[in-house]
Amino acid sequence: MKQLNFPPALLTDLQEVDRVVLERASSRSSVVISAAGKYILSSGGKRLRAALALLAAQFGVYRLSDVLHAATSVELIHAASLVHDDLIDEAERRRGAVTVHTRWDHGVALMVGDYLFALAAGEMALAPDPRIITYFSQAVMTICEGELAPVMNVIPFATARNQYYYKIGCKTAALFAAACKAGMASGQGTQEQIDALGSFGYDLGLAFQIIDDILDFIGDEKLLGKPAGSDLRNGTITLPLIYAVAADDDATLAASIDSRDEDHLAWAIAEVQRLGIEPAYATARQHIDLALSHLDIFPDSPARQHLGEIAAFVLEREQ
Amino acid sequence: MKQLNFPPALLTDLQEVDRVVLERASSRSSVVISAAGKYILSSGGKRLRAALALLAAQFGVYRLSDVLHAATSVELIHAASLVHDDLIDEAERRRGAVTVHTRWDHGVALMVGDYLFALAAGEMALAPDPRIITYFSQAVMTICEGELAPVMNVIPFATARNQYYYKIGCKTAALFAAACKAGMASGQGTQEQIDALGSFGYDLGLAFQIIDDILDFIGDEKLLGKPAGSDLRNGTITLPLIYAVAADDDATLAASIDSRDEDHLAWAIAEVQRLGIEPAYATARQHIDLALSHLDIFPDSPARQHLGEIAAFVLEREQ
Repeated sequence: MKQLNFPPALLTDLQEVDRVVLERASSRSSVVISAAGKYILSSGGKRLRAALALLAAQFGVYRLSDVLHAATSVELIHAASLVHDDLIDEAERRRGAVTVHTRWDHGVALMVGDYLFALAAGEMALAPDPRIITYFSQAVMTICEGELAPVMNVIPFATARNQYYYKIGCKTAALFAAACKAGMASGQGTQEQIDALGSFGYDLGLAFQIIDDILDFIGDEKLLGKPAGSDLRNGTITLPLIYAVAADDDATLAASIDSRDEDHLAWAIAEVQRLGIEPAYATARQHIDLALSHLDIFPDSPARQHLGEIAAFVLEREQ
Repeated sequence: MKQLNFPPALLTDLQEVDRVVLERASSRSSVVISAAGKYILSSGGKRLRAALALLAAQFGVYRLSDVLHAATSVELIHAASLVHDDLIDEAERRRGAVTVHTRWDHGVALMVGDYLFALAAGEMALAPDPRIITYFSQAVMTICEGELAPVMNVIPFATARNQYYYKIGCKTAALFAAACKAGMASGQGTQEQIDALGSFGYDLGLAFQIIDDILDFIGDEKLLGKPAGSDLRNGTITLPLIYAVAADDDATLAASIDSRDEDHLAWAIAEVQRLGIEPAYATARQHIDLALSHLDIFPDSPARQHLGEIAAFVLEREQ
């Protein structure tokens, strides 16, 4: 399987982010908030968003003590939004592990999310550049807007695709972009540099989510912790399905996606695998290329190479 | 009925806070977030917390453009926490109006709360003193901790009273204190001045919540928008009940509070009215006196007088 191989110095700094994230999540007075906060924050995430912030800072003046706050904030925000997203979706599991509201209850999940958001706000206040709070608060607002904007129909193609792009732009790409911008601002970048890294993060985030949605159809059930086609079963319309419907000449797939019949679902999943995966991959690849092109304003550097490795990883990952 | 009579200049500034709060809540792209955000933000709140921030700033260098951000933030945070509190309690109504999750749905309520918290974070970043973010983010964390710490039992008295104080300190007093501290920090107060106003706000907040809990037993149903004794019906243990149980020699009240029998409930509510209201009022009065004593470090001024009027209003209000 494709692995991310970061240099030892970056890994050491990511471990420090990890330590600080978990330390921050210890509530002074609530045992359940400490437990549930640590549970979600140590649930096998790759700290990809923190790595983006650290690497973005390396395009400028890199001091871990400066960028640490942006990197910590983005991981706290990410964890909070996962807990609230699972609560809205009533999801029982994430990556194979039971969700916070399943392990505890709805009230705990709601409050732990709020607590982590507030922790993130306090953390951002320590960052060296006040714009960082603006980047992250706007990203959270965007995540909320996207959460309430589902993809409504698989056809017509252009509408479905536009709704899908809006959705994943809000849900995933906005926070990737904010992580990169906050990192570069922590590294004292110019506005042009901050914007370039924001664009890189945004396209990388789009590709990341498209791959996530592809893996939902073709991934290994053991690696993903959920059966193939979960999105289709839950009525969630994603890019592979939109492409498959568009490629399906006799329109039987579009007519059948609300079916709850197991045989029918198995057939629909196979149709998406046959017709929708390849064009979705091609689209993800385009966004990766676009993401990398935003870095052209920077000379070659180890940080730029590592962002390239992350981009390749996003495209080739299996979970 | 007791009314707050603020001077015209303060009312004008509060109207500006009101305008900014509602303007901020307009989502660029989500109709439902705009609608639900404005709904909760214009649901008859007194902007008491904003008034505290403005008046606190008047002990120092008062510029509306400086303190506006603290005043706006505290109202956004208050609204967000009401929406999430109602969601946890599954409350159908607040002050007679249907709650956000009842009028829309759970997902909308969850996201509108998150959105308002994020708006508040962005707003705080505009404030002139970076400590303001810390005050508010810690207040939000405290609210979350309190939300998950119910008063478990009515006896023994000391335990019940301590749990109740912890609960209302988290739920109400912490944000009152943060509003005062953020106001004074916006007015360039010294640490001693900020701490004094924080202590004023904390004791005022305790009294405010005790009066709220008294009104739940004796208030006018039409003014409150809910029948008398709602807390008892919902199993929520508050100070009037704790005092009534302690004063009830033969312990029948303590044994009966989990009853769902209507006659029994009516009897229990009458017992609380007979035995619990007066000592709870006396306690609220003590906190008001204590709150005012924290202002002794300041010379007499219009701002100090207005805080005195707010304190009197908190004690004498009927809704």
